[in-house]
Amino acid sequence: MISTSLKKQFIEVVGEDHYRDSSAERLVYSYDATPNFQSMPDAVIVPRTTQEVSEIVKLCNEHRVPIVPRGSGTNLCAGTCPTEGGLVLLFTHMNRILEVDEENLTVTVQPGVVTLDLINEVEARGLFYPPDPSSMKISTIGGNINENSGGLRGLKYGVTRDYVLALEAVLPNGDIVRTGGKLAKDVAGYDLTRLFVGSEGTLCVITEATLKLVPMPETKQTMLALYQDIEAAAKSVSNIISNRIIPATLEFLDQPTLEVVEDFAKIGLPTDVKAVLLIEQDGPREVVERDMKRMEEVCLENQAVSVQLAATEVEAEALRTARRSALSALARLKPTTILEDATVPRSEIAKMVKAINEIAERHDVKICTFGHAGDGNLHPTVATDARDHDEMERVEAAFEEIFAHAIELGGTITGEHGVGMMKAPYLEWKLGPEGIGAMKMIKQSFDPNNIMNPNKVFAKESRKRVVISR
Amino acid sequence: MISTSLKKQFIEVVGEDHYRDSSAERLVYSYDATPNFQSMPDAVIVPRTTQEVSEIVKLCNEHRVPIVPRGSGTNLCAGTCPTEGGLVLLFTHMNRILEVDEENLTVTVQPGVVTLDLINEVEARGLFYPPDPSSMKISTIGGNINENSGGLRGLKYGVTRDYVLALEAVLPNGDIVRTGGKLAKDVAGYDLTRLFVGSEGTLCVITEATLKLVPMPETKQTMLALYQDIEAAAKSVSNIISNRIIPATLEFLDQPTLEVVEDFAKIGLPTDVKAVLLIEQDGPREVVERDMKRMEEVCLENQAVSVQLAATEVEAEALRTARRSALSALARLKPTTILEDATVPRSEIAKMVKAINEIAERHDVKICTFGHAGDGNLHPTVATDARDHDEMERVEAAFEEIFAHAIELGGTITGEHGVGMMKAPYLEWKLGPEGIGAMKMIKQSFDPNNIMNPNKVFAKESRKRVVISR
Repeated sequence: MISTSLKKQFIEVVGEDHYRDSSAERLVYSYDATPNFQSMPDAVIVPRTTQEVSEIVKLCNEHRVPIVPRGSGTNLCAGTCPTEGGLVLLFTHMNRILEVDEENLTVTVQPGVVTLDLINEVEARGLFYPPDPSSMKISTIGGNINENSGGLRGLKYGVTRDYVLALEAVLPNGDIVRTGGKLAKDVAGYDLTRLFVGSEGTLCVITEATLKLVPMPETKQTMLALYQDIEAAAKSVSNIISNRIIPATLEFLDQPTLEVVEDFAKIGLPTDVKAVLLIEQDGPREVVERDMKRMEEVCLENQAVSVQLAATEVEAEALRTARRSALSALARLKPTTILEDATVPRSEIAKMVKAINEIAERHDVKICTFGHAGDGNLHPTVATDARDHDEMERVEAAFEEIFAHAIELGGTITGEHGVGMMKAPYLEWKLGPEGIGAMKMIKQSFDPNNIMNPNKVFAKESRKRVVISR
Repeated sequence: MISTSLKKQFIEVVGEDHYRDSSAERLVYSYDATPNFQSMPDAVIVPRTTQEVSEIVKLCNEHRVPIVPRGSGTNLCAGTCPTEGGLVLLFTHMNRILEVDEENLTVTVQPGVVTLDLINEVEARGLFYPPDPSSMKISTIGGNINENSGGLRGLKYGVTRDYVLALEAVLPNGDIVRTGGKLAKDVAGYDLTRLFVGSEGTLCVITEATLKLVPMPETKQTMLALYQDIEAAAKSVSNIISNRIIPATLEFLDQPTLEVVEDFAKIGLPTDVKAVLLIEQDGPREVVERDMKRMEEVCLENQAVSVQLAATEVEAEALRTARRSALSALARLKPTTILEDATVPRSEIAKMVKAINEIAERHDVKICTFGHAGDGNLHPTVATDARDHDEMERVEAAFEEIFAHAIELGGTITGEHGVGMMKAPYLEWKLGPEGIGAMKMIKQSFDPNNIMNPNKVFAKESRKRVVISR
């Protein structure tokens, strides 16, 4: 609860218009893209400057008010659900691209910039910002940084973390720190930049970022490899890499996903095959042509029933857009869509896909699987109904087995979605008590009053929600 | 001081042969490659397993004995000088390459593996480990990770940090943690992996690492661009990048450095020009040829007096080796060689080189400058004599001005050498009290008894050694 006098103090900082606590406003920010989590904040606050953020944070720290920094709320881990109430901090007034530096190949932005707007701005200048989360049309850079977002180009180009050169951030005590610089190399002390990337708003509020750009690849080609055997598709993935080719994109969609996506996108995707790989390479023309040819051979050697090269950029873009729309397409099936991102070493993709299907069958749930196969980053997804408690129990049990199996294969509980509240109970499976302990030491030292996005990353209780035998 | 009973306990852990406290042994490990720092450890200890490391650390923590993990001691920041005594921890018995995984493109190693041995091992399989610190012939991977070492290939390929996928580490409380995995994507909690990389042995002891490999580039070409004007050389550097070419190597050597290196290496380097750029590109043949041609044009447009392509790989390797030998060559001049690594955004290279020369003149010291120009990472170097106190004062004052100027240009006090003890007094210039404060919180929470490489990164007193006006 925020007292009248504290509310007055917040309004003194941001002005009447930028502190909102009507039921309607609070309701809008009571949830994010993650199903089954909802909790009302006490208010929504919209700062215009870093200085305002610092003053807000100081007040929150003094009065023990939780703060949840939020971009567009597209995360899938309940990372921006205000589970303890408090303030939701929006960046709709801190949404400017401050500078594109063509000599140092950097772009400096405020956190509220929409990812696709940034991408379009730099591409217009022949530069390239590779991280491309599927939600990039609406997600913000601040959200991407907080979640260390991945995307379809992660295999070749890495994830958000690999492109953050410098940050301005407000610590829980109100201190404003600046990390890094427009520097290819900087070892002045601990790597705070990368500690903050992916910290899910639990350590600081990010108020500005300088991102690395690379030259725009000269050209790009796209193809679809069709399989009647899921394991053959998975095998193609590791064979491509062990043939020393790193494609820009290497996506997997199984048949149930294909059907749903085709029904949504209507671009003529094959729905009569067991799986497809969406493969892209970018770079100099000769290299792209050579790599595509070699990858086509690898796919055919691994029992692809056909390999189809997109004839035009329009066709290629339709394929990419269809892939990016998978979540939206699946969300049409049933009221509740649970999309996970268990991740394994890419050599284990075939085993993992097989295990997911066995687990689904055993628990009598229907799982559609797609994802960034080249990264070993799969998105097994269930369309269900939260009101069907029996099915929800089975879904949860199935996902727990999937997490456990991913870890057994040397993988992780989350490749790119983050821990948030949703996966916090499972984090210890990946890190052990010692690893969690080390992370808690950092959290505790930065945020002793636990005001920064409480309940995220670290579970209130580490007991898992459903007990399964492993 | 280590008591007789504690010594007995250490010997119980590692055995009589692996605990050494003779004067001769202690003397050998009382210094590293950094001039002017020497301090005797109480003993040298050589564990064989992670379990032994954990037991050693626990004993040290209990008895407040400082631990200094040390690879080959090639660092240039007094990062492994045992300034508070205690134990020097060696990894000469933990020096195995545990696995090369050709499917996941990873290599798993113990910290004592020599960098070049690793590089040779993976290159024999057509794989590539890009980080190549100049000391790679003798440096260890453990040391590279602790210092986040850079090298000549940093511009295109990044630094050690960008290749560390997973770590096993012993925390100051003796806990063994495992971070990351053979995973292209992993966002399960804070990025401990990258927090530990570059933490200079102040947070943990690294006992195992899994590193990312990339396919070996198909071919490589090397050329030398000669200049009679230093600023023209610097201008070429930023013009190459703003022409959207990212070469594998883009090294700068000024005339004084060229003279010294040629006298050492005797490979026919030009010594009658003011500066050279050593430029390399690797990748598919067509791309390399195209990029080299374009870079040659850019250099000539920027007043290069000539551009010479290495005709053979032998010639190219001689050029690279000569560049890598710069420190050794400079070290022959006088008893004390002080090599720094102030780093600026690459657009500021010309200004920085000019400033270094002006500062040198003003303080009447001779500075040779060379370095990774494409990264903005310069190595201004002074050959001096520590016994000449008057000159040492002037050298120190000059370097302080260089650091201050680098920071004014948006740079940093250290691009790849680390802070260690040597640059600790200047760290606050880069980070401000808030940034130092945040890093100290992490240090304090991990290592409350300050046993892990004390006095490194954080200065005992933040007052700088010589007061200069800025």
